[in-house]
Amino acid sequence: MEFRAKDIAVLLNGVVEGNPEATVNNVSKIEEGKPYTLAFLANPKYEHFIYTTEASVVLVNRDFVPAKPVPCTLIRVDSAYDAIAVLLKMYETMRPQPTGIEQPSHISENAVIGEKPYIGAFAYLGKNVKIGNNVRIYPQVYIGEGVTIGDNTVLYAGVKVYYGCVIGRNCTIHAGSVIGADGFGFAPSTEGYHKISQIGNVVIEDNVEIGANVCIDRATMGATRIKAGVKLDNLIQIAHNVVIGENTVIAAQTGIAGTAKVGSNCMLGGQVGVAGHLEIGNGVSVAAQSGIIGPVKDKTVIMGAPAFEAAKYQKSYVLFRKLPELYRQFGEMEREIQTLKSKQ
Amino acid sequence: MEFRAKDIAVLLNGVVEGNPEATVNNVSKIEEGKPYTLAFLANPKYEHFIYTTEASVVLVNRDFVPAKPVPCTLIRVDSAYDAIAVLLKMYETMRPQPTGIEQPSHISENAVIGEKPYIGAFAYLGKNVKIGNNVRIYPQVYIGEGVTIGDNTVLYAGVKVYYGCVIGRNCTIHAGSVIGADGFGFAPSTEGYHKISQIGNVVIEDNVEIGANVCIDRATMGATRIKAGVKLDNLIQIAHNVVIGENTVIAAQTGIAGTAKVGSNCMLGGQVGVAGHLEIGNGVSVAAQSGIIGPVKDKTVIMGAPAFEAAKYQKSYVLFRKLPELYRQFGEMEREIQTLKSKQ
Amino acid sequence: MEFRAKDIAVLLNGVVEGNPEATVNNVSKIEEGKPYTLAFLANPKYEHFIYTTEASVVLVNRDFVPAKPVPCTLIRVDSAYDAIAVLLKMYETMRPQPTGIEQPSHISENAVIGEKPYIGAFAYLGKNVKIGNNVRIYPQVYIGEGVTIGDNTVLYAGVKVYYGCVIGRNCTIHAGSVIGADGFGFAPSTEGYHKISQIGNVVIEDNVEIGANVCIDRATMGATRIKAGVKLDNLIQIAHNVVIGENTVIAAQTGIAGTAKVGSNCMLGGQVGVAGHLEIGNGVSVAAQSGIIGPVKDKTVIMGAPAFEAAKYQKSYVLFRKLPELYRQFGEMEREIQTLKSKQ
Repeated sequence: MEFRAKDIAVLLNGVVEGNPEATVNNVSKIEEGKPYTLAFLANPKYEHFIYTTEASVVLVNRDFVPAKPVPCTLIRVDSAYDAIAVLLKMYETMRPQPTGIEQPSHISENAVIGEKPYIGAFAYLGKNVKIGNNVRIYPQVYIGEGVTIGDNTVLYAGVKVYYGCVIGRNCTIHAGSVIGADGFGFAPSTEGYHKISQIGNVVIEDNVEIGANVCIDRATMGATRIKAGVKLDNLIQIAHNVVIGENTVIAAQTGIAGTAKVGSNCMLGGQVGVAGHLEIGNGVSVAAQSGIIGPVKDKTVIMGAPAFEAAKYQKSYVLFRKLPELYRQFGEMEREIQTLKSKQ
Repeated sequence: MEFRAKDIAVLLNGVVEGNPEATVNNVSKIEEGKPYTLAFLANPKYEHFIYTTEASVVLVNRDFVPAKPVPCTLIRVDSAYDAIAVLLKMYETMRPQPTGIEQPSHISENAVIGEKPYIGAFAYLGKNVKIGNNVRIYPQVYIGEGVTIGDNTVLYAGVKVYYGCVIGRNCTIHAGSVIGADGFGFAPSTEGYHKISQIGNVVIEDNVEIGANVCIDRATMGATRIKAGVKLDNLIQIAHNVVIGENTVIAAQTGIAGTAKVGSNCMLGGQVGVAGHLEIGNGVSVAAQSGIIGPVKDKTVIMGAPAFEAAKYQKSYVLFRKLPELYRQFGEMEREIQTLKSKQ
Repeated sequence: MEFRAKDIAVLLNGVVEGNPEATVNNVSKIEEGKPYTLAFLANPKYEHFIYTTEASVVLVNRDFVPAKPVPCTLIRVDSAYDAIAVLLKMYETMRPQPTGIEQPSHISENAVIGEKPYIGAFAYLGKNVKIGNNVRIYPQVYIGEGVTIGDNTVLYAGVKVYYGCVIGRNCTIHAGSVIGADGFGFAPSTEGYHKISQIGNVVIEDNVEIGANVCIDRATMGATRIKAGVKLDNLIQIAHNVVIGENTVIAAQTGIAGTAKVGSNCMLGGQVGVAGHLEIGNGVSVAAQSGIIGPVKDKTVIMGAPAFEAAKYQKSYVLFRKLPELYRQFGEMEREIQTLKSKQ
């Protein structure tokens, strides 16, 4: 498909500067611009690329003043960054999505499936599964007995959902993620550990996105709960009975131990560890690789393992780096004291 | 299914206090107690919930003395915590388990399958696979050539077992785990790295539980060995030729590098890293996020990265947090010394 | 299959010392040597095992001088380590590999498949997929629309490749890995986060090996790129728009955040975290569990979180461990100063 600069400008409420008939059939990054593509310039540090880019059309902010002539057609918009997001979304929306039920797939007799489903080959829907409208279940997905899935939700290839879990509307779960495996509960006994049965489930509310190869364990009793609007990156571990608050965002490879409660609107960096049975407030920011071993108040910014206030951590770390130098000075001071003592 | 308080009391060797005919059809947490459910009170810090809970029946320790009237029927038992574990187990045991062989599945002609199997749709059993009695193989599991699986073992959906691996009796492996992928062995050469073939296998002994999306690599030669009673949480990495000793428990996202040997009855926290070619003794405890780069003696408790004795680590870390303050005091001392010198 | 010592010696350009007719049918480690197996001795610290090993034949370096009589036949070669790698490779090559197309599998009408394929049961090949010669696609693999795969590449069971990704020649991807899931891009808005569409892809060049349960996300625009000869261990996270340079090796559970660029010939240890939008030079070595938050120059060796020069980190860490002792000395110095002051 090809688009003319002037048509894109209309879409984005922008103004063309250059050839309004310039056509594009794809997008590219400004530093890798190719002919017949559309690029964007939002970050001023990339400005120099615009003077040599081969991209045919470039989105720029309305107030952009080129320092030299540009080789491309410009479209001026209120925010080049927002405009490209709109275009990416349109581009993606135009990609045809699969529909229908491919064979062979395993759909239990009493499964209830809404309108316009996609169910890929080799997908498995257990007994009493209930699926809303416009749901896409990619190939090789497993959905255990009694699972409920809301409208417009997408489960990519190979997702596994254990029995009894509940997934909301407008959710996306990427390939390989496992929802509802047993929580890690064992009690010591004289013949080794015996397992504590995990009879709860996982509840994922609306508008949640979950990355690839994530694990969210079922509760011992009750529910492990991922609240509305949460975004989880890849390879994250959510243990049994954890609650993640609304619109909290967690980066890859972070792990939350059992029964911990994370507030709403938090941002956790990658590879963070949160110990069990503690509560993190709302609006908390956690630096990557931090380890949280105690409760955290609302809106704090923390860092380190064990984590404490980030600004303080950074001061301590600067001095950690200086320890060899401080140690040398320390030795000098000691010698000076000895000298002083000997002179008394 | 409904149960009366008096019947539960008989099961648990307990005593009813209140209405012996009170019925329950599910369990709940005391802080979220709902009518017609059974809750338990083991941890005294939850005691206040018992005076307002809507749960119909609550298990308590025999010596529990309520500070006020309770709105529910009590069942007094020796240990409320142990009793609830027994009930969860019974509850789970009553859930009907799938049996039989679903179609389509791929079962090689010469595969040997024991009594009462469950083999889910889209499961794949390669040549010469041998499976014991009462084994459950969920949908989309892959079992490579020559794999042996003992009685009563369960492989949840999407587990992948490479050729030649051996899995014992009474094991559970959760969805998405990969057993027997190649160890990570490459030798540098003038044209980049060349792969060292990994021709060993993985041996998992009896009573092992493995979480979801775990990776256990096959040995270069010989076996990577997970000994009896080991419990592994989700997203764990076990490299080639590692040995994990009996009844050792490892929390999520921990990684053990090649040829390391972990003793028996150890407890490793989450996100721990263990370097290759080293030996960890028996009964060792490792704090979460620690990094182990040398051998560890029996029964030590270690922490930090690199890890050392936990009690010492904590003392060092307290001072790490105080470094800015110590630095200020250090500067004052320096000035005092200069003053002393100038007065001489 | 059985091999005689004299035949193995011919293969490896070695010299037999002992019984040239000694036969072996497997390999073993020298410390676990069993009759009718071949072991090797490369590392001198294992020498004592050779005097008691039950292995029938042992490969040794040409200059090995036994301190005592050995119970086995020796084959002297230039490098026992290289020789065993050659034998492992031969052993593996002799293992018959699956070929043909198993049923049921899902192959789109317009998929193009090269010569001598293996396509396992329950594998899914979407529209316009193009696959080279001698490619092996194991059971339960998912290959999305328009994916291209080069000659001799192997995708083990359950690998998921999203639409539009490109995989080179001679690559190996282990079970459960997910190539091309959406990058983690969300923009805050008044009603929570909205998703930034991820319309780029993943390009994996030739001779790349990828471990099990790895995640490599598709680019927002353009490509996430894994260059030729890269080796990735298990459970690694590669975010959108990352570039990994030629022949770089990354150990398990490491995560690289969005748009970071890692140079060629680097070695990253396990559980390393690399922050987004930064550049790591060529030939850089990163210790396990390090956290990289700024650009790194060519050929540096770094450690710590945040990471800096490894030699300096180790000096600081030695002093971190000594902090309690230093603190005690520090207190003494303070008392001495007070004493000096009081005497003036």
